[in-house]
Amino acid sequence: MRAIVINQEASMPEHVDKKMPELQEGQVMLNIRASSMNHRDVWITKGLYPGIVSGATMGSDGCGTWQGEDYVINPGLDWGLNQNFQDSRFRVLGVPDDGTFADYIAIDKKYLYLKPSHLTVTQAAALPLAGVTAYRALFSRAGLRQGEKVLVTGIGGGVALMAFQFALALGCTVVVTSGDAAKITKAMKMGAVGGYDYKDTNWTKDLVTDFGGVDVVIDGACGPGFSGLIRVCQPGGRIAFYGATAGQIGSVNPQQVFWKQLSILGSTMGSESDFGQMIDFVSKHHIVPVIDCVLPLDNYRDGFSRMAEGKQFGKIVFSH
Amino acid sequence: MRAIVINQEASMPEHVDKKMPELQEGQVMLNIRASSMNHRDVWITKGLYPGIVSGATMGSDGCGTWQGEDYVINPGLDWGLNQNFQDSRFRVLGVPDDGTFADYIAIDKKYLYLKPSHLTVTQAAALPLAGVTAYRALFSRAGLRQGEKVLVTGIGGGVALMAFQFALALGCTVVVTSGDAAKITKAMKMGAVGGYDYKDTNWTKDLVTDFGGVDVVIDGACGPGFSGLIRVCQPGGRIAFYGATAGQIGSVNPQQVFWKQLSILGSTMGSESDFGQMIDFVSKHHIVPVIDCVLPLDNYRDGFSRMAEGKQFGKIVFSH
Repeated sequence: MRAIVINQEASMPEHVDKKMPELQEGQVMLNIRASSMNHRDVWITKGLYPGIVSGATMGSDGCGTWQGEDYVINPGLDWGLNQNFQDSRFRVLGVPDDGTFADYIAIDKKYLYLKPSHLTVTQAAALPLAGVTAYRALFSRAGLRQGEKVLVTGIGGGVALMAFQFALALGCTVVVTSGDAAKITKAMKMGAVGGYDYKDTNWTKDLVTDFGGVDVVIDGACGPGFSGLIRVCQPGGRIAFYGATAGQIGSVNPQQVFWKQLSILGSTMGSESDFGQMIDFVSKHHIVPVIDCVLPLDNYRDGFSRMAEGKQFGKIVFSH
Repeated sequence: MRAIVINQEASMPEHVDKKMPELQEGQVMLNIRASSMNHRDVWITKGLYPGIVSGATMGSDGCGTWQGEDYVINPGLDWGLNQNFQDSRFRVLGVPDDGTFADYIAIDKKYLYLKPSHLTVTQAAALPLAGVTAYRALFSRAGLRQGEKVLVTGIGGGVALMAFQFALALGCTVVVTSGDAAKITKAMKMGAVGGYDYKDTNWTKDLVTDFGGVDVVIDGACGPGFSGLIRVCQPGGRIAFYGATAGQIGSVNPQQVFWKQLSILGSTMGSESDFGQMIDFVSKHHIVPVIDCVLPLDNYRDGFSRMAEGKQFGKIVFSH
């Protein structure tokens, strides 16, 4: 079968002909019909992940067919039973476990969820990792409530867009940031009420002037701009972050945090419960993931290049 | 009546003869029999608080008598109904509102709580502000559960000691830090299972080696050492801080925070609900606040000097 595998000595993964996986107890053989990329895939090719094994199939997100039904895969393996944090055995599907950029995957049946009926296979393949990460950050961690004001930073990324769509679906007022005016324009068309260029030194003041601040921030950047997120929070605000593309959190003013009773919440991936709730939420609200482009799996190199450049708005999907 | 009032042109408050307060609607006249100091009182004398009015009576904590019954005062005025954060009208009793360092106070009856019967008037006067601040940080914010491991930093301060006693009473394993070996020794005698000098560069490693880390941290310092608090947290850990005696939070590693699913929680004072629950908890567990010394109110200068030096272990109480 086809498989796109990591080669630690090359800057791009390799297309190989791999033998079919063998089924272990509890596993089923899913015929993968679409998969999608995450930043994680690019980081793995750069060697920026622990536990990389050359020859392992890449890809965390996938949607496929088993016994005539279409399923999406929960890529969070062995989270464990504690909702508050993942077990030490926890890992994300796709390196070192063989992932979704292949024709078939042998996967434990408990990680399969029926594809929401309003989504195509291609759309559903865009959902898993970004969806569960956004869901946990927004609901399980930040406890978003209907009608609250939400800031989603770095709009255009998979998790950011999913958080944005979830918050809109709940009936929240959502503002966004980006370094790219075109991405802000797109978000405004989708329902954002405000958009700010985070490179503009006045953006936090402008947001407070325009909307009086926000109740919840969903961030994947951290970095020196983190103190601005604290400034735009209203009392009782929650900042949940799931990544740190801009690096270390710079100096933080603790008085602002305790006087406003803020909560700063680290969040990554999600539990099986988070995943199931996310699928239900997407089904209930007929949410369709934003897709940047659909490429044939054989053209995976174009997908890796596009994501590495950061030009995408939404998910990069491979059709198999 | 006697009153100790702020004089913005002097480094010490003044002892004055003040006319009796006039009762407003809903207020009762409490004969204050004991009061206690907080860091806030020292900061006010240094001009480090907004809204300071020369001539206002100082003091946030007090226990007194009205119609033959002894009451402690909830010093958190006009918190409002939202449990998540205080109303914009919120303020702490004692400058600009006339406080407890006086023979009498006119106070809204809703801020009076019957003195827990296991406490003397002197002990009860040590309870309010430190007690409610510790209770909110530990329970309402960090959600401490029985059997968890807790780190309380800067043991010796009023809030730190109260948090320490509350966590012990709940059946938690508690470790402490201090820059003063004598304070650590005292805490160990009270039930701490470990004590670390935060000036020792290896203290976080030692704590992890000794106890495997902690579930909850209660901190009042922040400052450059904050990253050490993140290091000692186990997955799912919560750091609640109520002060920042060491200044700005330095650079923070976001990967540690999101990978461990940590929560960093600002907390200040507490709601009326927090205060009522704190009084009930203290009564149920027969907690007796740690008192550093009891001074006659007329010797208030000694109290202010002692607190400014930071030598105290427990609360500095004035008997009236």
